[in-house]
Amino acid sequence: MKQGSIFCDFEIKRKDTGKGKKRFYRYKGDFSWQGIQTEKYKSAGKGWADIIRQTLIGNHGESAKFHLRYFEIAPNGFSSFEKHRHEHVVIGIRGEGMCIVGKNKYRIAFLDTLYIKPNEPHQLKNPYNEPFGFFCIVNAKRDKPKIIGP
Amino acid sequence: MKQGSIFCDFEIKRKDTGKGKKRFYRYKGDFSWQGIQTEKYKSAGKGWADIIRQTLIGNHGESAKFHLRYFEIAPNGFSSFEKHRHEHVVIGIRGEGMCIVGKNKYRIAFLDTLYIKPNEPHQLKNPYNEPFGFFCIVNAKRDKPKIIGP
Repeated sequence: MKQGSIFCDFEIKRKDTGKGKKRFYRYKGDFSWQGIQTEKYKSAGKGWADIIRQTLIGNHGESAKFHLRYFEIAPNGFSSFEKHRHEHVVIGIRGEGMCIVGKNKYRIAFLDTLYIKPNEPHQLKNPYNEPFGFFCIVNAKRDKPKIIGP
Repeated sequence: MKQGSIFCDFEIKRKDTGKGKKRFYRYKGDFSWQGIQTEKYKSAGKGWADIIRQTLIGNHGESAKFHLRYFEIAPNGFSSFEKHRHEHVVIGIRGEGMCIVGKNKYRIAFLDTLYIKPNEPHQLKNPYNEPFGFFCIVNAKRDKPKIIGP
């Protein structure tokens, strides 16, 4: 699997599919949900990776002040080392991964929960052999990440 | 286990324990997290139940526009039938439960995700034999629920 980097909260603008038209997302048992599309990402920097994102809450016209996304980083993949004013909440769901936050490093496994406060440089990595899947909750209105390094 | 009701987003005001002082919550493997207290609830209406809440994100001085809580409803327990302007996002984590939303009824199992839009009457129930645990994400600023019925 190739290495690559993503913006961990890069946002694709999509059409509002109608407020409240679809509101229950049945889990299919394979880290995907009925009614939720899997999006592929290409790196904005060097390299690339098969990194997927599924937006569970946030692009169906919801009025909530937050978005809920499920990300999956393939083995050897990593996100950009970046910072921004908005916060992240990361919840481990599949496999394990690492998160660098400032000078700290956290190993994230199932249901481990990490709060990344504003302006903290951070990077998510998957140095393991299984896919690393996690929920990431962010404010609906958020600033664009500033890239610090690969 | 006795029946009872809770407000599904009743908020206990707690002292800010310091911005960003504690930010990684290791999952202990038993539906609890290191550094997160388990809170017991008594019903504000008739009856009561052993219903617990753990606030993962929201009472440690976080600046995010959302709160993340883990609730667990014991067998035969249920929340108040209520409505409010703020939204709920419910993610099944432990066991299974039911959620009534308006005229619809959803069975919620592991990772099933439900968006409850503003002003929709709703109620969470656990008619099963195992505890029903779920994440509930809400806006940090939210209105008080209006009770519709038991």
